[in-house]
Amino acid sequence: MLRTKRDGGAHSAEEITEFIEQFTRGAVADYQLSAWLMAAFLRGLSDDETVALTSAMLHSGKVLALPSVRAVKVDKHSTGGVGDKISICLAPLVAACGVAVPMISGRGLGHTGGTLDKLEAIPGYRVGLDAKKFERTVREVGVSMIGQTAELAPADRRIYALRDVTATVECIPLIVASILSKKLAEGIDGLVLDVKVGRGAFMKDAKSARALAQALVRVGRRAGKRVVALLTDMNEPIGRSVGNALETREAIEVLRNAGPRDTRELTLVLGAEMLVLGHAERSLVQARARLERALADGSAFERFLRMVRAHGGDTRAVEDPERLPRAKAQLEIRAEKSGLLASCDAYELGLASVALGAGRTRADQAVDPSAGIELRVQRGDRVARGDVLAVVHARSKALAASESARIASAFRVSPQKPKPVPLVLERIAK
Amino acid sequence: MLRTKRDGGAHSAEEITEFIEQFTRGAVADYQLSAWLMAAFLRGLSDDETVALTSAMLHSGKVLALPSVRAVKVDKHSTGGVGDKISICLAPLVAACGVAVPMISGRGLGHTGGTLDKLEAIPGYRVGLDAKKFERTVREVGVSMIGQTAELAPADRRIYALRDVTATVECIPLIVASILSKKLAEGIDGLVLDVKVGRGAFMKDAKSARALAQALVRVGRRAGKRVVALLTDMNEPIGRSVGNALETREAIEVLRNAGPRDTRELTLVLGAEMLVLGHAERSLVQARARLERALADGSAFERFLRMVRAHGGDTRAVEDPERLPRAKAQLEIRAEKSGLLASCDAYELGLASVALGAGRTRADQAVDPSAGIELRVQRGDRVARGDVLAVVHARSKALAASESARIASAFRVSPQKPKPVPLVLERIAK
Repeated sequence: MLRTKRDGGAHSAEEITEFIEQFTRGAVADYQLSAWLMAAFLRGLSDDETVALTSAMLHSGKVLALPSVRAVKVDKHSTGGVGDKISICLAPLVAACGVAVPMISGRGLGHTGGTLDKLEAIPGYRVGLDAKKFERTVREVGVSMIGQTAELAPADRRIYALRDVTATVECIPLIVASILSKKLAEGIDGLVLDVKVGRGAFMKDAKSARALAQALVRVGRRAGKRVVALLTDMNEPIGRSVGNALETREAIEVLRNAGPRDTRELTLVLGAEMLVLGHAERSLVQARARLERALADGSAFERFLRMVRAHGGDTRAVEDPERLPRAKAQLEIRAEKSGLLASCDAYELGLASVALGAGRTRADQAVDPSAGIELRVQRGDRVARGDVLAVVHARSKALAASESARIASAFRVSPQKPKPVPLVLERIAK
Repeated sequence: MLRTKRDGGAHSAEEITEFIEQFTRGAVADYQLSAWLMAAFLRGLSDDETVALTSAMLHSGKVLALPSVRAVKVDKHSTGGVGDKISICLAPLVAACGVAVPMISGRGLGHTGGTLDKLEAIPGYRVGLDAKKFERTVREVGVSMIGQTAELAPADRRIYALRDVTATVECIPLIVASILSKKLAEGIDGLVLDVKVGRGAFMKDAKSARALAQALVRVGRRAGKRVVALLTDMNEPIGRSVGNALETREAIEVLRNAGPRDTRELTLVLGAEMLVLGHAERSLVQARARLERALADGSAFERFLRMVRAHGGDTRAVEDPERLPRAKAQLEIRAEKSGLLASCDAYELGLASVALGAGRTRADQAVDPSAGIELRVQRGDRVARGDVLAVVHARSKALAASESARIASAFRVSPQKPKPVPLVLERIAK
């Protein structure tokens, strides 16, 4: 294997299956897999090889089938951004429209947040349902949002840990296999991918984001799934909040048919794709109309309440978000000059949010659910000197103050109106 | 480090030193070093980087200085071949001419033999002298031949073990650093490299052997040593024996001013380089004459006896090689047709020799000192149908018979006289 890839050769599917099986049972050592990862990074993997790798990683553990769930099952995956609370409003909304959403999410790491941390801002919400309870929740409620379990794609977890310490993370085929092996383990029929591009994203430029999106769609389809990817902007945070309880609150606003325009819009765009992939609607236009009705008639919000209840969460905190964890200290960041908000650096705000306690730099760290940044303005908004740009939420005034300069510097006020940036840069469906 | 090399960048000497130090003390894991080895394999290492790597590996352990040895110290290293017993006759011969030879050798692995196994065919010979005893033997006898110790270049041992299982062995800068870090730990002033090329060698073609030889000379000189490399033919075995006791016996014949023409010639050519590097003679011609005198007057043989004695070996087995281990079974391989010996495949004979018990496929195997193959003809010799081509030595008739077909097929008899192949293909001195 190592020699073949080192010399730029191609592996057969059987070879890849065997290699990952051997790795899973310890017959291929970490140091051998690492050398192979570096060879794969430098020599590349073809689609055939990536399909085989995805399948081998998928079958390194349990693959859910959810046989008792009769609805079509569709999930969404985001490559990660700042202020990305979309899953929380999207999953119950799509479920309310008749498509089942068995969603396994991750935790925040580095400057990007994670859906599990946001859900856990709801007192009592348990992300650790077992496979049986997960299936029952998807069957009865239409949606369940849990964390990765040790049973699903264990090879991916070990491989990811090695990539992280061997400079082999930024490799499209390896990213594709990692994402898809975890998602296919959910037993889904279709998958919508939100590939973020920009300062706050893993992919900083459209070219590499497009290449990743295309590879995800090609390989996902080769694996027999319906897959669509959207390239979406991640230079600015999504919506008006960064931080767990703050974001959950914003997601609840969207489910109550309100919330920031961009958060709602991205939810509708991704949801429409999910309904079409789930054969609930024929066209994106019809799908969008249905989603809007589910937001307006309260059925999406009601679905969220049911899911939170099924996960042991306190629905009073959903009904009344004032009950969500609230930071002891708030500190306002004010504009130093007047003009228009030209940009608001998602990456800097993501890092500041981690420093405030909302995220983590190591996987074993706990997060402060109440910490974060409330954004009072968004790109293009007019601001006057002295206006509040953001409110920093932290467990102490001192901690909030320690990040205030960084947060202030993330906002750029300019005399000119910035060019509008579309939310969705590109749709990749084949 | 990994990211830099992955992206084709260059490391500073400080970075390499730090990386190997961290690896030595466990702060860089095996899986990280492996990924770096693969990146280095695919991206290459410059001479600067190879010099730094050699130095870092050298200083991962003890570096001998042999301060009490007043003679100039020169060693020889062969990249490994079949029937290569040259070190055994060369080292005492050179010592007899006034240049000290502190030689640390290896064991056989795969189809190539190792000097330590050959020396151990002499009853009682101990290859495991400690540094102090080694220095005393070099000082008093002028030559000592021992095995690698745990103290010298420990990073090389660990890195080599990883290369072996990560398909990163065949990489010139890594080979250079491995060879030179071990050799420089001996405290030598000069080094003659015998880079083998051909079927029985590690490098099968002249181009890659030349590249290795040039890199060894360049990097060795950059490390402050006098270095010369010879590219020598390894399509046929050297001399008339393959196997430990058989080869030791042949080396003793050379030291007694006899032995096969090619074994003697290669000894003289390499020895002349060593005497010139050791400033014992001004020219290769003068050096050769001096070596021939030392063979003729018995001083080389006498030096060998003294070394064997210092290592606890039974000198009676040197005086009378009939006392060397002798296999229970002998089996003659005869020519099936008449003609001239066109070729005699060193690789096949090397593999057969391992199968007979003379070598090992895993580092922890023991060898049978008496096993091997005695060659009765050499390339270009005229043979008649029924002539003995070789005698197989093994612990049983059955074992000898099991390899007889392979050994017979290694000999190719042809009506035409083969073109003569020079023993030394090229001399690389800068």
